[in-house]
Amino acid sequence: MIASFETLKTRVEGSVLHVSIDAPPINLMGPKLVRDLVDLILEFDQNEDIHVAVFKSANPDFFISHVDVTKIAAYREEAGRLTGEASVGMLFRRLSETKVVTIAQIEGRARAIGSEFALACDMRFAARETAIFSQFESAFGLTPGAGGIQHLVRLMGRGRALEALFTAADYDADLAERYGWVNRAIPAAELEGFTTQIAQRIASFPPFATTAIKARVNAIALASEADFRIDSDLFGDAVTNPEVGRRMKLAMQRGFQTRDTELDFGVFGHLDEIEP
Amino acid sequence: MIASFETLKTRVEGSVLHVSIDAPPINLMGPKLVRDLVDLILEFDQNEDIHVAVFKSANPDFFISHVDVTKIAAYREEAGRLTGEASVGMLFRRLSETKVVTIAQIEGRARAIGSEFALACDMRFAARETAIFSQFESAFGLTPGAGGIQHLVRLMGRGRALEALFTAADYDADLAERYGWVNRAIPAAELEGFTTQIAQRIASFPPFATTAIKARVNAIALASEADFRIDSDLFGDAVTNPEVGRRMKLAMQRGFQTRDTELDFGVFGHLDEIEP
Amino acid sequence: MIASFETLKTRVEGSVLHVSIDAPPINLMGPKLVRDLVDLILEFDQNEDIHVAVFKSANPDFFISHVDVTKIAAYREEAGRLTGEASVGMLFRRLSETKVVTIAQIEGRARAIGSEFALACDMRFAARETAIFSQFESAFGLTPGAGGIQHLVRLMGRGRALEALFTAADYDADLAERYGWVNRAIPAAELEGFTTQIAQRIASFPPFATTAIKARVNAIALASEADFRIDSDLFGDAVTNPEVGRRMKLAMQRGFQTRDTELDFGVFGHLDEIEP
Repeated sequence: MIASFETLKTRVEGSVLHVSIDAPPINLMGPKLVRDLVDLILEFDQNEDIHVAVFKSANPDFFISHVDVTKIAAYREEAGRLTGEASVGMLFRRLSETKVVTIAQIEGRARAIGSEFALACDMRFAARETAIFSQFESAFGLTPGAGGIQHLVRLMGRGRALEALFTAADYDADLAERYGWVNRAIPAAELEGFTTQIAQRIASFPPFATTAIKARVNAIALASEADFRIDSDLFGDAVTNPEVGRRMKLAMQRGFQTRDTELDFGVFGHLDEIEP
Repeated sequence: MIASFETLKTRVEGSVLHVSIDAPPINLMGPKLVRDLVDLILEFDQNEDIHVAVFKSANPDFFISHVDVTKIAAYREEAGRLTGEASVGMLFRRLSETKVVTIAQIEGRARAIGSEFALACDMRFAARETAIFSQFESAFGLTPGAGGIQHLVRLMGRGRALEALFTAADYDADLAERYGWVNRAIPAAELEGFTTQIAQRIASFPPFATTAIKARVNAIALASEADFRIDSDLFGDAVTNPEVGRRMKLAMQRGFQTRDTELDFGVFGHLDEIEP
Repeated sequence: MIASFETLKTRVEGSVLHVSIDAPPINLMGPKLVRDLVDLILEFDQNEDIHVAVFKSANPDFFISHVDVTKIAAYREEAGRLTGEASVGMLFRRLSETKVVTIAQIEGRARAIGSEFALACDMRFAARETAIFSQFESAFGLTPGAGGIQHLVRLMGRGRALEALFTAADYDADLAERYGWVNRAIPAAELEGFTTQIAQRIASFPPFATTAIKARVNAIALASEADFRIDSDLFGDAVTNPEVGRRMKLAMQRGFQTRDTELDFGVFGHLDEIEP
């Protein structure tokens, strides 16, 4: 029996937990969603009946849009309930260490912390026609604070990671696959069936094997707590920078955090949106 | 003059040694093949006339199928003759450090330790139409013990490595190329010519250069002896687990280690083969 | 106001500096080009108005061909003016650490140190029809000394890096993209527009963000000074080897360092050029 959440809809199928992210209108990562993710990870820790979790979005256009920039202190505070540190990066690192096998099924936009959440999962499968990835922090004068730097460099190498981090651009599913941002781009019509099949298959194998494998893989490829903390602190410090504030204000005036603006191209989708 | 082996057919061409793996009926890795590989690596160490070795299979359907699960203690014991440790992982790590440049020319199935042998070679070229790769250990409740975790994570990153290790699924040559499991998928009809050309070309360059380059590359990308030893011990410990034993017995009843079963789809080729 | 250089043509556009490498006839890396690169990096350090630099070649057939093997001591000496060490590897490592965002726009051949210069940049975009990459050092009995080993292994993994380093072969832009040698292969007709757009976009974001991101990415993916130094010393020591000298002399007799020979196939473009 799984606890109920405000922004997560869950469905149990054997030892597979299907989790649908449902924080209208655009799945912003704010205090409520962070709070629910903390509770879910605690549930993962304690519930021996959950072997695999599949994360998807209730909103076909947005997997997780990005953080709610009007509530940065509040959502970071919520994250601290799990780790003792007001840091979503440290929270996501704990997600990467959970015994549960986590699969991100990505439709729609996964920008900034939406991308970082997907990167914290064990596997990423993206809808070829609709998934969009971006780490747009540098456009504001920020650095990704929730593990994006650590994961992207290890997945795609220095050159492609610097490109993604510096350009702040949108990457579609096919390019994300070529760069290693996701495992594979899958036709949208087949995606749900594909992730469900994989989840059920893994769930049919002994949990002690997946736990042992994950520990050995993380020992190689999951960055240290110290590195996550540095990135998290850099983000936390930079949000007080006046130039960052000016750009956030400008972005809000242009429709940032509203559905239509983010749907069409994002504030940074075009090359000439932000003037120096 | 090269020593002769029971399960390896060799042919010398200049300073290129062609090695054909020939352990009928399906190139299982058992005590004889491990013994011959130990002798071959010792030959590499001592014979200054061998600069490049190309490994292929005498069996078009199986490169190396996997270990003979009925002889685990015996084949591990054989490996110890080279390194002093009863571990194929440590043996394969020594292969990765040999002065000889090693090329794996893969046709047919390379599952579990078959994949790990290929990963221990310096380069991997796969027949597009026939090569199949899998690390199926987790389906038994095991973890790959001969370096597969160490190599796959470094070659394809955390997400794709976890997918391969968790799903225990078959990967064809094209997907293996996209994931970095192999250097390239080559049309089967061109593969032998391709690897021979590369081998002859490398053999025409000074051995002191390839030796120096290999040492520098291994310093970056070959995992430590300690990491290989941990993985090897995890495998060795897990084989005594009753649930692993139950699954092995079940697999044998279903035709595991027989040609027809392994040819058609492997015991784990279908998603619903193993019940939890 | 940017200083003027003998082998580099520069053009300022906002905070983007366009740098065209112009050392006729084939953009060999000799003392003059190294001297100018030292001065350019010093300019990067001091000039707060430069945020992004795009490197391209004035010669459509050669990005940077390779080092001038007749002037090895002299060009290494020039590099020492920046770092105190007579090593182009250490110079290129400093380039990778500069606060300026660097983009390599590669048309034509980028062999040996030409490839290593591109690898030292933050991003690499290659003309699909014309760009060619090679680390041909092993054909001479040399090891790449200016960071090529460090970058290639981290970008493409052990197997593909060993292939490139051992075969000394030419890689076209598409294969270079598949291997991760470059970020992307772009149709030649679109390349200049593409890199200019990216440069202008990045230049519109706050420099303090790109500086912070670069430091964090380099902490993960830029090899240590010690590793660059080892590779540089290996190269420096090996050039005095008689067999290396013999091969260099042979190569010069065959047209090495002349336009026509290097244009058509390079001395090592064919598999049978160098006899053992």
